[in-house]
Amino acid sequence: MDYANYLKLSGLLSLQEMESTKKGKVAHDEMLFIIIHQTYELWFKQIHHELDLIQSIFGGASVDDAQLGRAVHAAERIVKIEQLLVGQIDILETMTPMDFLEFRDLLIPASGFQSEQFRLLEIRLGLTREARLPFNEQSYDANLLPDARKNVVAAEAKPSLRTQVNAWLERTPFVTRDGFHFGETFRKALDDMLSRDMAQIEKHPHLSQTEKDVQLASLRQSRAMFDGLLDDARYAELRAQGAWTFSRHALQAALFLFLYRDEPAAHAGFSMLKALMDIDETLAVWRLRHALMVSRMLGRKVGTGGSSGFEYLRATADKHRAYNDLFSIATFLIPRSALPPLPDNVRKAMRYRYED
Amino acid sequence: MDYANYLKLSGLLSLQEMESTKKGKVAHDEMLFIIIHQTYELWFKQIHHELDLIQSIFGGASVDDAQLGRAVHAAERIVKIEQLLVGQIDILETMTPMDFLEFRDLLIPASGFQSEQFRLLEIRLGLTREARLPFNEQSYDANLLPDARKNVVAAEAKPSLRTQVNAWLERTPFVTRDGFHFGETFRKALDDMLSRDMAQIEKHPHLSQTEKDVQLASLRQSRAMFDGLLDDARYAELRAQGAWTFSRHALQAALFLFLYRDEPAAHAGFSMLKALMDIDETLAVWRLRHALMVSRMLGRKVGTGGSSGFEYLRATADKHRAYNDLFSIATFLIPRSALPPLPDNVRKAMRYRYED
Amino acid sequence: MDYANYLKLSGLLSLQEMESTKKGKVAHDEMLFIIIHQTYELWFKQIHHELDLIQSIFGGASVDDAQLGRAVHAAERIVKIEQLLVGQIDILETMTPMDFLEFRDLLIPASGFQSEQFRLLEIRLGLTREARLPFNEQSYDANLLPDARKNVVAAEAKPSLRTQVNAWLERTPFVTRDGFHFGETFRKALDDMLSRDMAQIEKHPHLSQTEKDVQLASLRQSRAMFDGLLDDARYAELRAQGAWTFSRHALQAALFLFLYRDEPAAHAGFSMLKALMDIDETLAVWRLRHALMVSRMLGRKVGTGGSSGFEYLRATADKHRAYNDLFSIATFLIPRSALPPLPDNVRKAMRYRYED
Amino acid sequence: MDYANYLKLSGLLSLQEMESTKKGKVAHDEMLFIIIHQTYELWFKQIHHELDLIQSIFGGASVDDAQLGRAVHAAERIVKIEQLLVGQIDILETMTPMDFLEFRDLLIPASGFQSEQFRLLEIRLGLTREARLPFNEQSYDANLLPDARKNVVAAEAKPSLRTQVNAWLERTPFVTRDGFHFGETFRKALDDMLSRDMAQIEKHPHLSQTEKDVQLASLRQSRAMFDGLLDDARYAELRAQGAWTFSRHALQAALFLFLYRDEPAAHAGFSMLKALMDIDETLAVWRLRHALMVSRMLGRKVGTGGSSGFEYLRATADKHRAYNDLFSIATFLIPRSALPPLPDNVRKAMRYRYED
Repeated sequence: MDYANYLKLSGLLSLQEMESTKKGKVAHDEMLFIIIHQTYELWFKQIHHELDLIQSIFGGASVDDAQLGRAVHAAERIVKIEQLLVGQIDILETMTPMDFLEFRDLLIPASGFQSEQFRLLEIRLGLTREARLPFNEQSYDANLLPDARKNVVAAEAKPSLRTQVNAWLERTPFVTRDGFHFGETFRKALDDMLSRDMAQIEKHPHLSQTEKDVQLASLRQSRAMFDGLLDDARYAELRAQGAWTFSRHALQAALFLFLYRDEPAAHAGFSMLKALMDIDETLAVWRLRHALMVSRMLGRKVGTGGSSGFEYLRATADKHRAYNDLFSIATFLIPRSALPPLPDNVRKAMRYRYED
Repeated sequence: MDYANYLKLSGLLSLQEMESTKKGKVAHDEMLFIIIHQTYELWFKQIHHELDLIQSIFGGASVDDAQLGRAVHAAERIVKIEQLLVGQIDILETMTPMDFLEFRDLLIPASGFQSEQFRLLEIRLGLTREARLPFNEQSYDANLLPDARKNVVAAEAKPSLRTQVNAWLERTPFVTRDGFHFGETFRKALDDMLSRDMAQIEKHPHLSQTEKDVQLASLRQSRAMFDGLLDDARYAELRAQGAWTFSRHALQAALFLFLYRDEPAAHAGFSMLKALMDIDETLAVWRLRHALMVSRMLGRKVGTGGSSGFEYLRATADKHRAYNDLFSIATFLIPRSALPPLPDNVRKAMRYRYED
Repeated sequence: MDYANYLKLSGLLSLQEMESTKKGKVAHDEMLFIIIHQTYELWFKQIHHELDLIQSIFGGASVDDAQLGRAVHAAERIVKIEQLLVGQIDILETMTPMDFLEFRDLLIPASGFQSEQFRLLEIRLGLTREARLPFNEQSYDANLLPDARKNVVAAEAKPSLRTQVNAWLERTPFVTRDGFHFGETFRKALDDMLSRDMAQIEKHPHLSQTEKDVQLASLRQSRAMFDGLLDDARYAELRAQGAWTFSRHALQAALFLFLYRDEPAAHAGFSMLKALMDIDETLAVWRLRHALMVSRMLGRKVGTGGSSGFEYLRATADKHRAYNDLFSIATFLIPRSALPPLPDNVRKAMRYRYED
Repeated sequence: MDYANYLKLSGLLSLQEMESTKKGKVAHDEMLFIIIHQTYELWFKQIHHELDLIQSIFGGASVDDAQLGRAVHAAERIVKIEQLLVGQIDILETMTPMDFLEFRDLLIPASGFQSEQFRLLEIRLGLTREARLPFNEQSYDANLLPDARKNVVAAEAKPSLRTQVNAWLERTPFVTRDGFHFGETFRKALDDMLSRDMAQIEKHPHLSQTEKDVQLASLRQSRAMFDGLLDDARYAELRAQGAWTFSRHALQAALFLFLYRDEPAAHAGFSMLKALMDIDETLAVWRLRHALMVSRMLGRKVGTGGSSGFEYLRATADKHRAYNDLFSIATFLIPRSALPPLPDNVRKAMRYRYED
């Protein structure tokens, strides 16, 4: 057992074969290009390793509270890894376009689009085939190698983390409990707040009528959106229109966790949702940075894999997001001070036994 | 002279008046909200201070080479400041939406859109009124205070850094010199390379016909784009369509600096262009992070200033960019090894006299 | 209510008076110097604001579990602010020594050592007067202004966060409970593990005798250190020698929280300890970066405040740390798999009531 | 040519063999431990690749100005890589000590001290065997494997980058030129400035006598240090005491580049020196972070390789630095405004020919 042996360094450090060297005209920066992509793939493997843990915890019939803490920890680690991946772009951008061109043609038609681990990662997080943007009028897996294509299709058939989180949220034990119906209680609180807000806006001394109209319309829209959360038929309609992906009960539970996150029993659940939002957001930032880097390298040229490059990558930063619903929940949040207090029995149930 | 006195700390540290405190219900996170915005404004002031230096250097009839180095240094400092501003969003995101809601209503109708320094910064960098996206069907300065509106209009009347850089590029002494015509020489090199590339693609053993067509179309498009750079009338047309904002000669000079940046006399000029791209890109990343943060805080609600929030901010990350042309130049870059060597007299002129 | 008004921008942006301008020879970088220090002070104010919250939570006779979550949140925010403060040094280092010298003499004898907020911050975190390194053979507050000196002395008289955390740890309800004595139980587990480890090392096929001796000595030392935790007299001795600052019971409780952190009722407590370690570590990194930056600016010159500069600052990164004890606890940690299971009654007490 | 093939992914992603899995008790975090170290080693390889380029440029009899720009670029890339390596510690610190302990014993006696690439990197940058701290009373390469030991000994026999930079500085063509003797000219300017400073301090209205004495002593020491730079015998003495490692002429040239860096012909040279300082400083920060992380994992235990861990690593942050001299040069810097103007012939020689 020594360091080099344990890390298999002789293998690892011999996997950088520069095409430019083979062709007899060394392109210095090809080494950077290889190594940065290899580190990306190693980190993708680590993210999958964390997803293995998280999915094994959320995949069961119930989630033990001690296990939930470990899942949160793993999810937060994924965020930190993603932040590193964003940071790596700073290094890649030290490669100027001309230095890239020195070896770029030798790579055709290889392309980052072929990264199987990245595709699997998107799938496991919850990005569905239907939600994906078309790419060069082809499905996203058209230019994967046969084995990789088989693997992504198989992965799509399994429950994603989003699906598992949806099921876990639906089981949340506090939303309806011993006569407490969170949806109804909250509907009243939200209504009161919106009415109060509307009254305030209408009599506001410094707002113009146009400004008032914008604010009032927004409040009315929030109310309508929330109504949609309380009614099965209306919700089904909204979901069909793409307004939501989580189920109605899961969304209510998520809203509950956001609102009552200070209660000990809600804390870890809230942290999990927050970590999922961070994962989603940081991935979106990475996608934008990646798109800008590509536009910097290639201008308006097409990519080695034949992609129209920048425009497509750019759009994925907006569209390829799995946890938009959690961001939209903020539409319904109200100040802590306006929060209806939990009934005593619910509040007590969310505390530790040692207090007895 | 003591530390507190020099930094005017007693003044500085008394400028945080929480509206929530005035209303008698302290919202803990309002302090963070105030302080983070105050640091943003302080850093905006610093960026303006650096722009003062850069614009004074580029504003003259010529740019001394020693001064150019200082302008590059100031521009690179702006990039580092922007990176910090991006990083500050990590701190703001520790404020949860509910903590924000605790004091948000007290701020209506104040809004970050009213930051005069930020508007001036965009203007000085080169964002024109015409290039801006409409905001709630109003011009971007509609809800600025009268004084601020006067200031942004006045700033728009002055030459922006982009205008100055354009003029400086047009004066580059190497593009046409002693019988050397960079545009023509490069046209030939580019042509040769494109023809070679086309031949290679056509006989490529592993590419499908579709893949070949995509690659070939891209090469043809690059050639057409470059042709547009050599002809006044064609270029005017492209510019009118919004394909370019720099002038034809400025663009050629920028391309020259990209290609021959290793030559001592091109190095600082290239560094300046690179810094402008970094400024542009980092600002775009900040805009995306800002948009995502807003969507996290408000979901689908409208902002305190009445903005439709996320969608608008999101779009500015793409559209409010001043140095897109420099990214597009990569379309014409060729590998160092295919670069036509400079004629001896030009090459020597770009070296130092001490070598004599 | 508008943006500029709310943030008091006209005041804020008029607090940058450059001494060099007053003296008629503008030093461009003095603006950066002023602004970066003003942002430091604003962030220090924010850290104090978070400490206000944390200390109000820990200052009571008991800490409510919902409140504990908020304290953790505030502590984690402090870490993020500290990380930003470290990042700001990247900006300050864009100022070259010569640009600093342009205005440095005008600042004598002002000095960063006079930052009252920074001194108060150290004090509140738990750095005591006795633990401080001597500075130019004077006490650290010798060159503070009279008012500031009064304030730091007053702050030293109040309980620091470390003192409060110590008291909170002493109250932890799980360490001794219903016949469970954590110290004794763990002593046995640790003993078993150390004995097993020793046996393994002694018969290890590839370790040299020297290597074995080093490992064995370390294990024996760990055991001796732990014994010191179980005996009042021995512990008092160790504490007098400076080996520990927390009380014996507080340390045991901290160890318990580290070991059983997966249990819901231990989770937030563990997170709090982790955040304190992060605060401590990030401040140490800031101190090193600050020291290196000073050495870069001044070489071997003395600082404007007359400090011997680098050496002193450098040493504070090691010595001015308040939560060393928490790092040292790792000495006693054992693998999760070797952890003695909690008795059923203790384990159940650490769970939520809703499970009933 | 496809992505997976080019990057040798099937090989790369099969090099993570967890010892804990082999032993039948999976330690989840061992994967992170392996992957983070593998990415470290990949980045070390990249740094060596950049050093190859830099050393090939500095290794010749002279450095072409176009090549110098490329060396600066490569050195600045190394800094960015080092910053990433520092950032990776944030990820490693998500592994708690207990999770580490789960597999730590399986690694004995492997140790990060055995990283051959890291040792080679230190050597190439300029860290000599003599300058290293003793480690467990053994030489630093005592527990390297035989092959690795051979390699580090061989590397020590080759010129390091520091040696090459020293030789390059000695050849700087401006320090003595056509009757201009930089050392003498600057001695006078420094003397004038120091005398002026002393006069100012002596009559300063607000400084105490003690404060004056500290400042005056420092100025006298700067003068003495500079005198040591002008005299061969005195310098040899200082160097023997360890005050300097560069040669006297190299140091003077470095000082010249610092002072006149705005001149085009000095700019790239100055940038090179600055990049070397950044490399040195960022490595020191990495060492501190690494040391703190180890103390967090192990407390006061010894490392798997038998190191006394924290204390040793901690000390290397201060002592294992190759470019301290460049930091110390700041001792002699004076404000731009006090800088003696270059004689016309020298100044002109540092400009481009195209100005003719």
